Amino acid sequence: MTTQPEKKYTIGLDLGGTNSVFGIVDHHGKIIATTSIKTQVYQKVEDYVHAAVAALQPVIAAVGGIGNIQSLGIGAPKGNIYEGTVEYAANLVWAHDCAVPLAKLFSEQLDHLPVAVTNDANAAALGEMTYGVAQGMKNFIDITLGTGVGSGIVANGQILYGCDGFAGELGHMIMDFSKDARQCGCGRKGCLETYCSATGVARTAREFLKESQEESLLRRIEPDQLTSLEVSIAAGKGDRLAKRIYDFTGAMLGKACANFTTFCSPEAYIFFGGLTKAGDLLMKPVLEAYDKYVLNMYKGKAKFLISSLPGSNAAILGASAVGQTVLKG
Amino acid sequence: MTTQPEKKYTIGLDLGGTNSVFGIVDHHGKIIATTSIKTQVYQKVEDYVHAAVAALQPVIAAVGGIGNIQSLGIGAPKGNIYEGTVEYAANLVWAHDCAVPLAKLFSEQLDHLPVAVTNDANAAALGEMTYGVAQGMKNFIDITLGTGVGSGIVANGQILYGCDGFAGELGHMIMDFSKDARQCGCGRKGCLETYCSATGVARTAREFLKESQEESLLRRIEPDQLTSLEVSIAAGKGDRLAKRIYDFTGAMLGKACANFTTFCSPEAYIFFGGLTKAGDLLMKPVLEAYDKYVLNMYKGKAKFLISSLPGSNAAILGASAVGQTVLKG
Repeated sequence: MTTQPEKKYTIGLDLGGTNSVFGIVDHHGKIIATTSIKTQVYQKVEDYVHAAVAALQPVIAAVGGIGNIQSLGIGAPKGNIYEGTVEYAANLVWAHDCAVPLAKLFSEQLDHLPVAVTNDANAAALGEMTYGVAQGMKNFIDITLGTGVGSGIVANGQILYGCDGFAGELGHMIMDFSKDARQCGCGRKGCLETYCSATGVARTAREFLKESQEESLLRRIEPDQLTSLEVSIAAGKGDRLAKRIYDFTGAMLGKACANFTTFCSPEAYIFFGGLTKAGDLLMKPVLEAYDKYVLNMYKGKAKFLISSLPGSNAAILGASAVGQTVLKG
Repeated sequence: MTTQPEKKYTIGLDLGGTNSVFGIVDHHGKIIATTSIKTQVYQKVEDYVHAAVAALQPVIAAVGGIGNIQSLGIGAPKGNIYEGTVEYAANLVWAHDCAVPLAKLFSEQLDHLPVAVTNDANAAALGEMTYGVAQGMKNFIDITLGTGVGSGIVANGQILYGCDGFAGELGHMIMDFSKDARQCGCGRKGCLETYCSATGVARTAREFLKESQEESLLRRIEPDQLTSLEVSIAAGKGDRLAKRIYDFTGAMLGKACANFTTFCSPEAYIFFGGLTKAGDLLMKPVLEAYDKYVLNMYKGKAKFLISSLPGSNAAILGASAVGQTVLKG
């Protein structure tokens, strides 16, 4: 009896504003080899893809050639799984004012390899489901707490893409509809991201320092130099004002999650990104607010977990998991 | 060539707090025959099911016997599709303090007919997808604006049930987290339902009448006798205060939908229920607020539709559509 030789590897591309990092990933989620290029030194997407494919050749050769590769998955800003495009991505010079057919371009230059592209937050959720703490889960929300707030929603075992491929922008759920709510980069006001991102924490710090005369270690830092890391360090040292900043941030996130639950009743919230390093400083007020504000019938059902994927590799693993979906759906 | 004779009919059960209405539905969504029993004259669920099955016999016989019936679908408060149960439904005497295995009980007494049960809002969404304005859609939100606010969410062509079968309670999305927000029947404050239901409209009317001295037709009615219907009649006659009540209600609903879109980017919102009879009085401020508050990337993508299913039959059609899902998934 002979069986078709299985293709052993997937390529994951973490396409960021600065670097594009490729990883060859095996079926166990082990990254076998990596390579990278600068994302923005190319004015045209064709030149970017050409350079990327050239950089990939040695690592593909190292695993026995393209014949051993199953697919390429891409996690990119404004990635559209339905169209295989990256569309109007503000921070990408070759895609900021148009939709580029990234999947098609890569496939053509990689021996018609199946290629799928989605945004980084959805890739992260797929990474958690394939290799991380969400293995076996069919309903969960993955929330990235970084410079902004990203989200990937899994319902009925599938990423929720919506009618246009762009569902799951929970960082832009409006938490405060009042006129004096915080201005968001999206042009609106009161978005979750203005409170619960790293920049949101720094913003809260500046507000709290201005509103009170309370003594704080944070007063030693120039307000415009303040970061969420310094707030968490100060809180760790017992600084009460710093602790109140995390209480406020966590409460806002817990309230938001209570609202998200009325939508999809997930079995877990999985948090990823820089802000999670604050640990219980953040998670304790999240849980308290969630428990206070969630509808009774959902109480005690959702787990609150921190991603177990190593930060530096998570995006590559997520992207490689996107590649695997192209062969299923 | 012979083909297996197809089972032609589905039974839909609209299980309400007062009446339980059964309809035999053909594949085109035509209701062939109906029968009903009182829901609450039975103390035990077994007696309820026994009476229901007795009432069903003549209508089943009228379509040629149980052999022509494909399945029974039930839309019931706190219906759980995963378990086939009705669980802790406050308004059902035989299920208010327990989970009753309704699907199993019906199936046992109906010749092992496949039976599925979900809540009325999900049934309504399935009804729209099978027979109504959502035919062919894979991503939409169905919102029932009645005494309360119910919702059924369809994503990737499937009802969103979540980890416990109870996802999609958008009427309990908290719109106002402040301490003086409106008290909701769920025990919390500021839920969408306290503003955008028929009772919410009446509540807004009482508040607006109390807060101002403005002349209004509504002042001729005792405050505790005010209903949303009277507000819409007054607004139709040009009453400015009544119109402001609908502006407020519609704006709240539009803001809520703008937030829902960040979740699942639906191709349509479909509204059903008594409040939709207000027509443009309600829908115009909904659309204005939605357009103002929705994230730019989603602008112009979602349609806003009113259900086309006839009110009296919609619940039966929805329930029968639930029955059809039991044969697929």
